[in-house]
Amino acid sequence: MVVEICSVSGYSDFGKNMTAVKVGNEVILLDMGLHIENYINYTEDEDFVKVKADELIEENAAPNISFIDDWKELVKGIIISHVHLDHVGAVPYLAGRFDAPVICTPFTSEVIKNILQSEKIKMPNKVEVVQVNGKKDIGKIKVELLNMTHSTPETTAIVLHTPDGPIVYMTDFKLDATPTLGKKSNLKRLEELGKQGVLALIIDSTNAQDEGKTPSESVAKEMLRDVMASIRGKNNGIIATTFSSHLARLKSILEEGIKMNRKVMFLGRSMSRYINAGESCGIIKFTDKAKVFRYASQIENALKKVAREGKEKYLLVVSGHQAEPESTLSKIVGGSLKYKLDPRDYVIFSCRVIPAPTNRANREHMEKILKKQGVHVFKDIHQSGHGASEDIMEIIDIVKPKHIIPAHGKLSMRAALAEIARERGYDSANVHLVSDGERLEIE
Amino acid sequence: MVVEICSVSGYSDFGKNMTAVKVGNEVILLDMGLHIENYINYTEDEDFVKVKADELIEENAAPNISFIDDWKELVKGIIISHVHLDHVGAVPYLAGRFDAPVICTPFTSEVIKNILQSEKIKMPNKVEVVQVNGKKDIGKIKVELLNMTHSTPETTAIVLHTPDGPIVYMTDFKLDATPTLGKKSNLKRLEELGKQGVLALIIDSTNAQDEGKTPSESVAKEMLRDVMASIRGKNNGIIATTFSSHLARLKSILEEGIKMNRKVMFLGRSMSRYINAGESCGIIKFTDKAKVFRYASQIENALKKVAREGKEKYLLVVSGHQAEPESTLSKIVGGSLKYKLDPRDYVIFSCRVIPAPTNRANREHMEKILKKQGVHVFKDIHQSGHGASEDIMEIIDIVKPKHIIPAHGKLSMRAALAEIARERGYDSANVHLVSDGERLEIE
Amino acid sequence: MVVEICSVSGYSDFGKNMTAVKVGNEVILLDMGLHIENYINYTEDEDFVKVKADELIEENAAPNISFIDDWKELVKGIIISHVHLDHVGAVPYLAGRFDAPVICTPFTSEVIKNILQSEKIKMPNKVEVVQVNGKKDIGKIKVELLNMTHSTPETTAIVLHTPDGPIVYMTDFKLDATPTLGKKSNLKRLEELGKQGVLALIIDSTNAQDEGKTPSESVAKEMLRDVMASIRGKNNGIIATTFSSHLARLKSILEEGIKMNRKVMFLGRSMSRYINAGESCGIIKFTDKAKVFRYASQIENALKKVAREGKEKYLLVVSGHQAEPESTLSKIVGGSLKYKLDPRDYVIFSCRVIPAPTNRANREHMEKILKKQGVHVFKDIHQSGHGASEDIMEIIDIVKPKHIIPAHGKLSMRAALAEIARERGYDSANVHLVSDGERLEIE
Amino acid sequence: MVVEICSVSGYSDFGKNMTAVKVGNEVILLDMGLHIENYINYTEDEDFVKVKADELIEENAAPNISFIDDWKELVKGIIISHVHLDHVGAVPYLAGRFDAPVICTPFTSEVIKNILQSEKIKMPNKVEVVQVNGKKDIGKIKVELLNMTHSTPETTAIVLHTPDGPIVYMTDFKLDATPTLGKKSNLKRLEELGKQGVLALIIDSTNAQDEGKTPSESVAKEMLRDVMASIRGKNNGIIATTFSSHLARLKSILEEGIKMNRKVMFLGRSMSRYINAGESCGIIKFTDKAKVFRYASQIENALKKVAREGKEKYLLVVSGHQAEPESTLSKIVGGSLKYKLDPRDYVIFSCRVIPAPTNRANREHMEKILKKQGVHVFKDIHQSGHGASEDIMEIIDIVKPKHIIPAHGKLSMRAALAEIARERGYDSANVHLVSDGERLEIE
Repeated sequence: MVVEICSVSGYSDFGKNMTAVKVGNEVILLDMGLHIENYINYTEDEDFVKVKADELIEENAAPNISFIDDWKELVKGIIISHVHLDHVGAVPYLAGRFDAPVICTPFTSEVIKNILQSEKIKMPNKVEVVQVNGKKDIGKIKVELLNMTHSTPETTAIVLHTPDGPIVYMTDFKLDATPTLGKKSNLKRLEELGKQGVLALIIDSTNAQDEGKTPSESVAKEMLRDVMASIRGKNNGIIATTFSSHLARLKSILEEGIKMNRKVMFLGRSMSRYINAGESCGIIKFTDKAKVFRYASQIENALKKVAREGKEKYLLVVSGHQAEPESTLSKIVGGSLKYKLDPRDYVIFSCRVIPAPTNRANREHMEKILKKQGVHVFKDIHQSGHGASEDIMEIIDIVKPKHIIPAHGKLSMRAALAEIARERGYDSANVHLVSDGERLEIE
Repeated sequence: MVVEICSVSGYSDFGKNMTAVKVGNEVILLDMGLHIENYINYTEDEDFVKVKADELIEENAAPNISFIDDWKELVKGIIISHVHLDHVGAVPYLAGRFDAPVICTPFTSEVIKNILQSEKIKMPNKVEVVQVNGKKDIGKIKVELLNMTHSTPETTAIVLHTPDGPIVYMTDFKLDATPTLGKKSNLKRLEELGKQGVLALIIDSTNAQDEGKTPSESVAKEMLRDVMASIRGKNNGIIATTFSSHLARLKSILEEGIKMNRKVMFLGRSMSRYINAGESCGIIKFTDKAKVFRYASQIENALKKVAREGKEKYLLVVSGHQAEPESTLSKIVGGSLKYKLDPRDYVIFSCRVIPAPTNRANREHMEKILKKQGVHVFKDIHQSGHGASEDIMEIIDIVKPKHIIPAHGKLSMRAALAEIARERGYDSANVHLVSDGERLEIE
Repeated sequence: MVVEICSVSGYSDFGKNMTAVKVGNEVILLDMGLHIENYINYTEDEDFVKVKADELIEENAAPNISFIDDWKELVKGIIISHVHLDHVGAVPYLAGRFDAPVICTPFTSEVIKNILQSEKIKMPNKVEVVQVNGKKDIGKIKVELLNMTHSTPETTAIVLHTPDGPIVYMTDFKLDATPTLGKKSNLKRLEELGKQGVLALIIDSTNAQDEGKTPSESVAKEMLRDVMASIRGKNNGIIATTFSSHLARLKSILEEGIKMNRKVMFLGRSMSRYINAGESCGIIKFTDKAKVFRYASQIENALKKVAREGKEKYLLVVSGHQAEPESTLSKIVGGSLKYKLDPRDYVIFSCRVIPAPTNRANREHMEKILKKQGVHVFKDIHQSGHGASEDIMEIIDIVKPKHIIPAHGKLSMRAALAEIARERGYDSANVHLVSDGERLEIE
Repeated sequence: MVVEICSVSGYSDFGKNMTAVKVGNEVILLDMGLHIENYINYTEDEDFVKVKADELIEENAAPNISFIDDWKELVKGIIISHVHLDHVGAVPYLAGRFDAPVICTPFTSEVIKNILQSEKIKMPNKVEVVQVNGKKDIGKIKVELLNMTHSTPETTAIVLHTPDGPIVYMTDFKLDATPTLGKKSNLKRLEELGKQGVLALIIDSTNAQDEGKTPSESVAKEMLRDVMASIRGKNNGIIATTFSSHLARLKSILEEGIKMNRKVMFLGRSMSRYINAGESCGIIKFTDKAKVFRYASQIENALKKVAREGKEKYLLVVSGHQAEPESTLSKIVGGSLKYKLDPRDYVIFSCRVIPAPTNRANREHMEKILKKQGVHVFKDIHQSGHGASEDIMEIIDIVKPKHIIPAHGKLSMRAALAEIARERGYDSANVHLVSDGERLEIE
């Protein structure tokens, strides 16, 4: 039986991932993400808003699903690999176009529900939950969601069992031997599949151009501990910021704050969203040790309390790692939220700058102001969530797929992954550098 | 009839180009080059030496012709596109393995003969000459060699007329509307072929990652004129260096030297080789205006004369643009050739540093010494000979090939060319990112 | 007699240049510029607006003149070296604080008047004109304005003759042996001064980190000619953009347009301002060969005409080289001005991106849209107006000053210039790396 | 009393550090280092050889002591801050020119003795030992050697107590709050001195251009642990390399090796030298857990044993982190030492490439061969030993010196440190960017 793969989106540019796999008369959709930069440029909002799906497609902010118009009636399920917006963000806008359930792990499910509810978006599809490392039948296709380490909890590699062998969809992932939250990647099951004979591997090429392996989250934690330990002197305010969905990092920040005898506050809408979801699923338990403030008025009151009691008693964890203009951090730095920054204070960016021109401009502008205020700034206290060349090599060696389809990135990134495959013995006939909207038949 | 293309070499790394095309029962070889860096690392010599072909193959210095062992008896001709060593350099070592003539333009032919003679290498193959823009039948295949602008004279795009349409092999080239030596690229004939329906285009991806177009040689000439015009003061010695085969550049340097009322001397073995070949073919006429010195003793005498008469009366054009340790320039800078450099002197590198670690180290070391001596240094007075993205786009638009095969470079370079093709409407099924030794069937 | 130099502004950051020199009881101010990026960020306008001087100072957009409060009554003249806004832009805001005339060459004078008039700003100071290479007595100090090549006409080095020898203030400049508009730098007079014994040289360090010399404007012209010559095919629209005050570049663009048999239109407010000033002073004569449109309604009508007659008949020269959001180019690309861009069209950026984060973000965004529309883009068809290390070295060798004060740039740029001075025999005692607001006594 | 400081060497280029301080009629020399790259280029040997001091000076490989010829008779002591060759390496060649003892901590003393002995160099000077954080009178000057964290044990800041207040000489250092070997930097004593009033701070500017703080050695240890933990599969050989004098790093590697149940072998001459010295001083105790092999024949035998028993039982720690041609690692990779590398093996570079062209070329060449052999390579498993801008800022805030003299680096690095000083309130009159050979009077 011929299997057809349509590389709907995320194969020509970085972001808005979506892949469709047709096995016999059934189609499974894998991920349904947003292109965050284009989304924000168009909506001028950093959070979800009501906007028409077709406009998002037109603006290159959501996957162009017209590529699979002829498969529309065959779709049996929409499986989401993990909670990042470039994988799940288009679900509220596009899922309704298909008569099929959204299938994901508990954490992703909680976040989807939270978004739909808080933004009052209606979505007709059912959301079905599969546990990490669990299985489910979708039509005639058996599906497994294997645990992978990444920069947010419950990231999974999706396995579709076809008559010609399993297809493994693994974007995003890293191989972290010592994760600080959650389990290690399920390499054991991947090895079993590898021995059995994998038909195709669709794989994350984000960091394929980087040599070596991506360091463990434990290295990021040690870096964080180190900069915290270096803060001397008195009356320092400390503000940390990172990706709101990166619960492992938030946990490390929380733990360091507690060690320093500071009260920890999490401030911001998205910060609250992911913490709530994480607590609902039993992944973390922050609220017995720290306070979380979601709405503008709550945040204002919290900062008043900080001012009253002394900022040296607190560690603030805020949204705004990319210096997004409407974020809590931007409001503090710009002065519209009351927290007087002075030369004793520290701002810790536990993230990298996502390489889009707007981010760079926003961050440079914010850092300039911080410098003028004399504030100490620590940047890049971070490790990536995407595997580098050694990690990719290891996956290829374990999974031993017949076909390799590099995903997630511009051609230069995907070509770097193809180069790695070549070093492991593959030739161009079995490594497919497909663009958005192409269809590939494999057997 | 199925046409088969074997990407023998130059498709996984930059250098040592070779492609084989099989049409029916006949095979044509296109180019037979050396990987210069690996060649020098192995032979420890910058010029041709007697060394076994198999050792060169083992050291990745020459194409691995074992990929086409089964086609060996079918080879009807070895066509060389132009005189650069990464296209012609392996001819003295490998051509003899095939019972077929070497076919090239007059200038390339002269250089091949010169190498064979001066290094006393015997080659059994006949060398057959085709004029630029001329035609020839090789077995049943009609061949054309179309003029292309590049950084050495008589560079050609090779057209093989197959029953399924012409195959155009175009590495290397740029689109220079105002060349300073020789004719413009034969776009007229390419347009005709394009209308007729080209089966495949094998094309140079060296500069595919660069935006815009590669500037004309006339821009390099103006840059050269500018730095020369800026030299003020008295008693300055001036030394210029560039690629020995770049006769257009040598001509510009010569003309500027004459304008400054300086006597021009060309010094060095390879400098002499290409000037002689150029004069034999009537491409240039330098020796009525300047002196050329080939051998060590001649060069020593010439420099004595310069010392006697005053270095401010001379412009020396020397080999050694990459600071190769045995070059004339290295000997001058190191002091083993007598030419006392002082702070009034100028050294002009009319080239770029070829990005190999040895070159970079050699050049940095030489520049450090020049700086210590106070010598004025002008670098990068140069424009590339390889087309950038706009040039490639134009060729694709004109030739409109059914299949595109990016050649000459690492996968990242070739992927950049594929990206350009994608923007012009091609998809991955017709753009072939093949590696060394693969075979591609097209029809 | 002790001479005191106050490095008011432009010595800690790039932009908003101003220097004060006190000789006996008289003070001369040299330049009075804006920090363009900070100005735009604060005023949210790319042209002059009514805003309070103290706000501009507070926002780091204008020089902090409080550093010379105690010298205020002693100021005898405000000399402006050339017309760039980082040298003249603060005059409308700050000159009125001093009871002294503004002194400059005719072209600068015309532009100042134009700004004051069109923005309806009142300035109490008289504007006095000195011809290029002319002299004038200001109080007891003799002043000369020596012609220097740069990227706008009538750029001058200001010479102040003090009892202890002349002070030469030379920011900005390059050494162009073949300028395409105006005369060469007055090195003859600088040599005379050098022999006489120069007390101090205040000098532009913008490109001190670049090796070699800055290429002539004639190289930029040749690059421009080359990209124009490469435009083939039919029905192409061509739009060029560059710095509005760069009349030499505008002239080259005009000449190339005429060669291509295209009608040339200059569109935009600042474009018009500098062309008018240039024509008033007899520097250029564009309006007999091209049309200039200043106001929004005029521009709209002009573009309607272009649409009617066919864009292939025109070359448009527009403001917006940095993709400033309100510029003519941004309006065309964004669609608010009617000029339908399509894949046959060309946009030529005859400039570099000024390295501020906002510019980079604006340009990347614009180029992304142009790419989506398939428009051909040529970038960096440009050469700098600031001398590189060889040019600086030559000035030091000619002027032989006792003291060197690197100006115009961050410490890293000014340190690079100090490094050059060290190579020419100076030590740290005579090279002064002063910051904004410092005072230096020399004798 | 006027204090004079002569910046003998290390103030114009990176390497060969030496400073002289004259207090009254007594002169103290601080450090006496080699410029390693120039040393190797000249001697063509990576270890100490007999060569004339004057030749080393001529080749810019040793400090030019002629700058202090007139102070020669006044020299009372040569204090060495730590064991790195750019601080101590010229002692065997130049110390004998002065009638004064060499003063240093025990570890440095051991290494000096070892070099003199093994290379059979005679040195007339006495070597006197001061404990870390200890004091000593040299003539009338009281001296303290304060412990600082760096990348080798017993690194000290040298304090000279002059009548006008202490001078603090602090090159090299970082502020590591959690060192993995030895104590933290003695900030307590620096604070006391700061309160007392420090006359001058001579300070390391190596990483002044880097934002933030330099991560702790504990981060490097965690990175090392992480890559080790990622090694899966069977029959892997593992080879690690790092700076031989970096005992903390060697200790981390040793500990990780033991955790993996591998026998650890240290191979190479310099590896042995520093381990012996460290054991003699009681800093480390490696030889009860690992074997150390110094001489070629020992190394050969050790590798034979590894081959017999299986390389998966061993972790080899070898010299050759910069791919120095004569190093143990180069010999293994090149095949002249028997250790067959294959695609299961790992090479870990726990270092950075020192940015000299020869190093880059050597490393690129070695990595190319490793890649061809399919060996897994981990690079840059490292953190610097030099403080970045936040560390420098903290030292300035604590020490509060009257004068700051940036040392150790090109002007651009030292200017970056001056920029930091400016942000902390200093102006150019008290920050001295002196070059090699200058003299500065301070009071």
